Amino acid sequence: MLTTICASAAHLRTTMRFGGMRWYEESSMASVNAISPEFEVHNYTQSLDHFNFKPESYATFQQRYILNYKYWGGANTSSPIFVYLGAEIDVTQNLDLSIVDLAARFKGLLLYVEHRYYGVSMPFGSEDEAFQNSSTFGYLSSEQALADYAQVIVDVKKDLSAENCPAIAVGGSYGGMLASWFRLKYPHIVIGSLASSAPILYFDDITPQNGYHVIVSKDFRETSESCYNTIQQSWAEIDRVASETNGLLNLSNIFTTCSPLNSSKDLKVYTEIAYMWAAQLDNPPSYPVNKICSAIDGAPSGTDILGRVAAGVNASVFGNSCHSASGSGLSRKSASAWEWQTCTEMVFPMGYGENETMFQSDPFDINNYTKECVDVFGIKPRPHWITTEFGGHDIKTVLGNFASNIIFSNGLRDPWSAGGVLEDISDSVVALYTEQGSHCLDLYPPTSSDPDWLLALRDKENKIIAYWLAEYYTKLN
Amino acid sequence: MLTTICASAAHLRTTMRFGGMRWYEESSMASVNAISPEFEVHNYTQSLDHFNFKPESYATFQQRYILNYKYWGGANTSSPIFVYLGAEIDVTQNLDLSIVDLAARFKGLLLYVEHRYYGVSMPFGSEDEAFQNSSTFGYLSSEQALADYAQVIVDVKKDLSAENCPAIAVGGSYGGMLASWFRLKYPHIVIGSLASSAPILYFDDITPQNGYHVIVSKDFRETSESCYNTIQQSWAEIDRVASETNGLLNLSNIFTTCSPLNSSKDLKVYTEIAYMWAAQLDNPPSYPVNKICSAIDGAPSGTDILGRVAAGVNASVFGNSCHSASGSGLSRKSASAWEWQTCTEMVFPMGYGENETMFQSDPFDINNYTKECVDVFGIKPRPHWITTEFGGHDIKTVLGNFASNIIFSNGLRDPWSAGGVLEDISDSVVALYTEQGSHCLDLYPPTSSDPDWLLALRDKENKIIAYWLAEYYTKLN
Repeated sequence: MLTTICASAAHLRTTMRFGGMRWYEESSMASVNAISPEFEVHNYTQSLDHFNFKPESYATFQQRYILNYKYWGGANTSSPIFVYLGAEIDVTQNLDLSIVDLAARFKGLLLYVEHRYYGVSMPFGSEDEAFQNSSTFGYLSSEQALADYAQVIVDVKKDLSAENCPAIAVGGSYGGMLASWFRLKYPHIVIGSLASSAPILYFDDITPQNGYHVIVSKDFRETSESCYNTIQQSWAEIDRVASETNGLLNLSNIFTTCSPLNSSKDLKVYTEIAYMWAAQLDNPPSYPVNKICSAIDGAPSGTDILGRVAAGVNASVFGNSCHSASGSGLSRKSASAWEWQTCTEMVFPMGYGENETMFQSDPFDINNYTKECVDVFGIKPRPHWITTEFGGHDIKTVLGNFASNIIFSNGLRDPWSAGGVLEDISDSVVALYTEQGSHCLDLYPPTSSDPDWLLALRDKENKIIAYWLAEYYTKLN
Repeated sequence: MLTTICASAAHLRTTMRFGGMRWYEESSMASVNAISPEFEVHNYTQSLDHFNFKPESYATFQQRYILNYKYWGGANTSSPIFVYLGAEIDVTQNLDLSIVDLAARFKGLLLYVEHRYYGVSMPFGSEDEAFQNSSTFGYLSSEQALADYAQVIVDVKKDLSAENCPAIAVGGSYGGMLASWFRLKYPHIVIGSLASSAPILYFDDITPQNGYHVIVSKDFRETSESCYNTIQQSWAEIDRVASETNGLLNLSNIFTTCSPLNSSKDLKVYTEIAYMWAAQLDNPPSYPVNKICSAIDGAPSGTDILGRVAAGVNASVFGNSCHSASGSGLSRKSASAWEWQTCTEMVFPMGYGENETMFQSDPFDINNYTKECVDVFGIKPRPHWITTEFGGHDIKTVLGNFASNIIFSNGLRDPWSAGGVLEDISDSVVALYTEQGSHCLDLYPPTSSDPDWLLALRDKENKIIAYWLAEYYTKLN
């Protein structure tokens, strides 16, 4: 394991940015230990490096992929293959997503491919080895991951004599970015992609830097003006109390931190993260923003600002036990591979000035960002590389008569939707969104309590996918 | 320098396959020493490795690019940029191609970018260092080269405040493959590509393996049935003479080899290459196939088969001095970087059985091919990688509603056209060909003796490019 991930408040702040794309981890997902037998686990002997031909490029690792034949119509009928592009999480945690319903509806084979350096798909044999230093981490990139998917899909199709079976890629968040990029770069391998909550425009100077936090703030304000005001006022109040004698100790008590606070910034970052997660995961039926605001607004009459926001944090996804607000709020183990990615390619320039959000001003500073990456990994980010490699500027013009069959779906309450594609690019590169949706909500396992607008979104997606398939079969025949 | 490139006949044969894409080297091109002052030479500090983030991936090298502003309308008028994608040759040898006429016609800036590992664009500081071993050679790949082009184009546009200027990629042969792939992978950077004689389908099992040699044979047969028959009969005759006492010495004398032949195979490979080059470079007004056949058919009455084919070889592009038919026929220095590429990604499966061509049977054998690569470079080819990365199978269906603005131009007398795109894929991904054209003929500098059908081809290309530009400017305004 990389041993230099420091726990300073500054880094914790960055860590949240780094880890901020993750979703669905509070779910009751099947874990690797409890995979239903209909899911067959396989390994593919994957090339470590697809783009160079150095002797070490020829090294391989075992990449996990999972098949579920339950719904498949088979190769004889050229039935489709739905490929879930794993992202920055153990892929076995995503097996019951709504992609299962797509398979059931279209007699599809389910293929889940784990992303390199996540789950058990570890180059160099183990996470300890793979995460050892920047030389071993160095093969973790989105381009390598996309090429991995290409290799696995081609190989699985060949194994099953399923060359005529149309494949469709599905992914959410970072995986949604991969899904859209995969359709752009490998159109010969998938006939279309469903890219859920994919902020492919949150790079370089395409999207306003404050986009994410503006939406977090909007979510809270729409839920409760008084809640929003309380949070907005709380930062100065934290600063004020912190500056008093025993102020940090008082704050530690008010916020029931697991250990005494070292700085007011640690606390502010921690609470900010609570609000960000709530907005990002503001799913029905629990609606975490609503829960936080209910706790803030519903505190007994006479409760002061800090008492109210402390109640809000207790009502957050962090729960109401003691709060690890001293830099250990995120699991270092789960965060580090994604942190590597944000220190190389995945540079989301997030920041905001005074009075743009309910938070204290915090402009994006590429120099600080770079310095942290150098400190932690010994490498510098390439903040302009993603737009050079995958585009993004002027996307409507560029892809207007290029590309086809991509669905960009977004929920407008999801802060990441600030960097999403929210406007149709062409007849077949389309943007679907719901006003009330949150991050990747359409990919969650359907439940009987799903609201009508979510059912309508999924229905639109199904109709578009049905059209892609019909078009494909017309050409095939 | 890599010191293990052996000179055996078997390897010479393979060398021809390896070096067989090259073109235009017999030209009277301006060399680096005599570049006209209108061509400005620049260097770009290029990333060695775009797709990994190991410490050594951050190394850089100086990549040469050349600008010519002579015709440019400037950034203020959003005038176009014509980008010549350098291929397996010093880019200064390609400065006067017909791309200059495109620039003149459309008020374009000319940008020539040299391919990494060719000319002076050498990683590790020099050719000696870059070609040292498979670790230093290992960063030579088409994917890295495409990313290089992306970086240079973005940087040049930024330098010139020319972000709104539409760029169009042009390339021939391997460079034509790169041009078409560049439009597919980087549509946000060029609005279209002219891919001349790009055999993007000569990979894997897409094109019949004998395609190249079938066309060579057709070219000779169409030129002269008796010439074709003489050549077809000559192989057995060479074998017969070689088996006699002093047979190799006799053959050495008949064919005026520079040194005594070690095997009849050396001679057969050498003459085969003479025919292949003649077909590939069968350009007006010299028409090398015609010259060879005139020599073969026009030998004094009573000249035997070997005397005739020896006269043919003397009339070939190899000239009539002594013939280096013992493995030194190709420049090792110029061939080795391209050989590396054919030993990694660029595996063209060329071979043929009995009576399919005017040559003796020589089926493609991936095991032998692989063994040679292991012997020379210590690495194994990845023969299926190109089609996984860039597609090719079922290209019409795949790109039918994906991609736009690519011209695939071919001459049907060019043996490489066997692997070219000869059928329109869509309204804007089009195939243009001439019955009488040779390899990359449309890219040669226009001359007053160009035949009408060549003028007509270039005219079609100009009209299509004019349409791309008009479409772009409509969207821009």
